[in-house]
Amino acid sequence: MTKLKGNLIFGQSGGPTSVINSSAAGVFLEALEHPDIIPRVFGMHHGIEGVLNDDLFDISQEDRQELEYLCGTPSSILGTCRYKLADPDVDDSDYQKILAILRKYDIRYFFYNGGNDSMDTCSKVSRYLRKNDYDCRVIGIPKTIDNDLFGTDHCPGFGSAARYIATSIAEVWHDTHSYNTPMVVIFECMGRHAGWLAGASALAGVIGHGPDLVYLPEVPFDQNKMLEDARRVLKEKNVVLISVSEGIMNRDGQLVAEQLSTLATDAFGHKQLGGTAALLADLVAEELDVKVRGIEFSLLQRAAAHCASGVDIEEAVLAGRTGVRAAIDGASGVMMGYARPDQGPYRCDIIHIPLEEVANREKRVPLDWINAEGNGVTADFIDYALPLIEGEPHQIHENGLPRFAHLKKIAVR
Amino acid sequence: MTKLKGNLIFGQSGGPTSVINSSAAGVFLEALEHPDIIPRVFGMHHGIEGVLNDDLFDISQEDRQELEYLCGTPSSILGTCRYKLADPDVDDSDYQKILAILRKYDIRYFFYNGGNDSMDTCSKVSRYLRKNDYDCRVIGIPKTIDNDLFGTDHCPGFGSAARYIATSIAEVWHDTHSYNTPMVVIFECMGRHAGWLAGASALAGVIGHGPDLVYLPEVPFDQNKMLEDARRVLKEKNVVLISVSEGIMNRDGQLVAEQLSTLATDAFGHKQLGGTAALLADLVAEELDVKVRGIEFSLLQRAAAHCASGVDIEEAVLAGRTGVRAAIDGASGVMMGYARPDQGPYRCDIIHIPLEEVANREKRVPLDWINAEGNGVTADFIDYALPLIEGEPHQIHENGLPRFAHLKKIAVR
Repeated sequence: MTKLKGNLIFGQSGGPTSVINSSAAGVFLEALEHPDIIPRVFGMHHGIEGVLNDDLFDISQEDRQELEYLCGTPSSILGTCRYKLADPDVDDSDYQKILAILRKYDIRYFFYNGGNDSMDTCSKVSRYLRKNDYDCRVIGIPKTIDNDLFGTDHCPGFGSAARYIATSIAEVWHDTHSYNTPMVVIFECMGRHAGWLAGASALAGVIGHGPDLVYLPEVPFDQNKMLEDARRVLKEKNVVLISVSEGIMNRDGQLVAEQLSTLATDAFGHKQLGGTAALLADLVAEELDVKVRGIEFSLLQRAAAHCASGVDIEEAVLAGRTGVRAAIDGASGVMMGYARPDQGPYRCDIIHIPLEEVANREKRVPLDWINAEGNGVTADFIDYALPLIEGEPHQIHENGLPRFAHLKKIAVR
Repeated sequence: MTKLKGNLIFGQSGGPTSVINSSAAGVFLEALEHPDIIPRVFGMHHGIEGVLNDDLFDISQEDRQELEYLCGTPSSILGTCRYKLADPDVDDSDYQKILAILRKYDIRYFFYNGGNDSMDTCSKVSRYLRKNDYDCRVIGIPKTIDNDLFGTDHCPGFGSAARYIATSIAEVWHDTHSYNTPMVVIFECMGRHAGWLAGASALAGVIGHGPDLVYLPEVPFDQNKMLEDARRVLKEKNVVLISVSEGIMNRDGQLVAEQLSTLATDAFGHKQLGGTAALLADLVAEELDVKVRGIEFSLLQRAAAHCASGVDIEEAVLAGRTGVRAAIDGASGVMMGYARPDQGPYRCDIIHIPLEEVANREKRVPLDWINAEGNGVTADFIDYALPLIEGEPHQIHENGLPRFAHLKKIAVR
C-alpha cells in the first residue's frame, strides 16, 4: 500500500487538562519523524476556529526541546475553543471553508484532541470529507478530566486531575485533623454528569486520609440524607471531609448549584456550574452548627501540571504518537482509545473506536461502583483508578517554578 | 560550663503550614542525638493544651525513619491549638499547672513552634519559669505562612505557600489564556494584615505567567480603582488575573469580606476571613459584564506539601536543630530567626531574637515594596521572595500518593 502523502494538522478543543499538551507533543514529535510522508506539521489556533479563520501555526519550525517541554505544560498551548459545527445537512458553509483550507495547505492528516463535543466535530468533518471524496485521515485524540468518553477505559487528563485532588484532600486531611475542634470541609470537584473526579477523591483513603463521604451525580442527592451522614461522622470522628461533584442533582433533577444566581449556559447548552461547595457549606453550618469550609478545586484541578500523573502523561503522549502511526497506516474516522487487561497487572493498550460511537455520548460511573448508601465508592472504583495516578510529573524547574514550553507560534504562510 | 541535663518538650501551635513538621523533625532528631544531656523527648498533644492536660507523647519511642518523613508531611502532626494563656499577673493558674508538669517530667527544654500568638505564649512561660526559679531553656521556633513575624527575615512556611500559590497561578494562567474569550480570575490568598502571600503570587510573573493586578492589605483597597484597573487590563489583554489578600480593607478600615455574613471571631479576637474572591468576582461580573471566576486557595495553600519549597523545608529543619544546640549551649527566652546577607548570593543564617520582641507584633510588607498604583509589588519584593521558593519537596510516593509520616504517638507515662 502506498502511504498517503500530505501535511498534518492538529487542534485542541474544549476544556484544557494538565496533559492535553502531552498528546500534542506525541502527535508533533511522531509526525516530525516522518518527513517523507508528512512534509509539514501545522497547529490550529483555537481549534477548529483556527481552520475556519486560516489561522494556523507552523509546528515544523518549533524547537524540538520546547515540544518536549509540552509534557510539563498544562492547558491548550495552541489555544482552545468551544465552537460547535452545524449539522452539515442543514448548513455546510463551515465545512466548505474547512475543506478549502485543507486543500490550500495539502492537509491529509486531520487530528483533533478533545472530549465528547470535539469528537462530534471530528466525526462530522470526517464524514463530510469522505462524502466529498477528499482523501484525508481523520483521527480523534481523547482528552477530558471528566473521564466520561465512551468506548475508552479512561481518558487522558483524568489521572492527573485525580492525583491532584486525592493529594490535596490527603493534605487538607492533615490540616483539619490537627485541631481538636469539630469541623466539616466540603470539596467540590468538576464533573457535570459523571462523578469520576469526586469518586477519585476517595483515592486519598488508600493512605488513610480520604473523604468520609462522597456524592456523585449518578445517584440522586438528598440533602437531608447528607446532613444525617455528616452528623453521624461528626459524632464519631469530630472532623468530616465531604467530596461532591459540581453536578450533583436532587431527586427531581434539579442541580444543587441551581440555587445560585450565577448560572449561565455555554455554546453547547451546558450549564456553567460552580458554587456547590459554598452552598452546601452554608447549609451544613446552619443545620449542624459547626465550623465549615467549602473548597472548590475550580480551574486548579485541570491545570495542576506540577502534580500530574506520570502514567497519564505517558499515555497522553502514546495516544498522540500511536494516532499518527495508525493514520499513516490507513486508519481514519476513529478515536485512539485505551484498553486494559481484565486481569493481572495494569497495562494500557491503544484501541481504535469509531468517532460516531464516541460523539455526544457519556460514560458515567457504573452504579455498582457506588456504595449502597450512595455516599462513597467501592473497592472496584479504587482498583480501577489507582493505577492511573502513578508516576511523577515530567517537569523541570527554574527558580523554583516550572519550566513551561515556549512555542514560537509562527503563522503558516 | 556544665550542660543543663533534663528532658525536652516540643509543641506546635496556631495555623498549620506545609513545613511545621520539618521543624519538629529538626528538634526531635537533634535532641535524640544528645541522650546524655536530653534523656527523653516529649511532644505536646495540641500544643500548650497538651501540657495543661498532662497529655504528652513519648517521641523517644518513635521510629527515626518516620521522623524523617515529617519533612514531607504537612500540618501539625502533634495537633495544634489556639489556646491563649492569661496574663500571669492576673491569673497564674495555667502557669502553675505548666510548672507542675515540667517538674513532674523533669523537663528542662521547652520548645514552642508557632506565630505571633505562640511566641506570646512562649514568652509568658519563659518569664514565669524565670520568676519561679525553675531552670528551663525556653525556645521559640517560628512558623507562619503569613510571614509576618517580627525580627526575622522570613518565616518557615512562607516559602512553601508562596511556591504553591505562584505555581498554581502560573498554571491557571495557561488555562485562561487558552480561550479567546474575555475573562477575569480573582485569586484569594491568606493574610489578615500582611500581604506577603498575595505579593508572592507575583513570583509567577518571573516566568511571564503572573497576575496582572495584586492588592495587599498594606494599602487601602478602593473597589472603583480596582474596577478601573481591571477594565484597562481587560481591554489590553482580554484576560485579567487578580490576586488579593483575604484581609484587604477599604479606606475606612472595613474589610472587603465583611459584607459576607459568615464572619465569626476566633479565640484571639481575630476575624475569620474568607470569601473575598467570591465577593469581588460578583462585583466584577456585574460591573464589567465579563466571565469571572473567584478562586480561594483556602486550606490548600498551607497544606500543599507536594509543592513545598526545598529551601523552606531545609531552613525549617535548621531552625529546629539549631534551636536545640543553642538551648544546650545556654540560650533561652529567644526565638530562632533567619537573617540573610545584605548583598551577594542568598544564604540563611540563624539569629536569636528575644521572645518579647516577637510576641504580638506584626511585620507587614514595606510600603516601598508596593508599586505607586497600589496594584502590584516591586522588583525588591521579587528579589526578596524568589530565593525562598527554590528547591524540590522532600517526598517519596507510594501508589502515586505521598508517603506521610506515621507516628505511634505513645502516651508518656
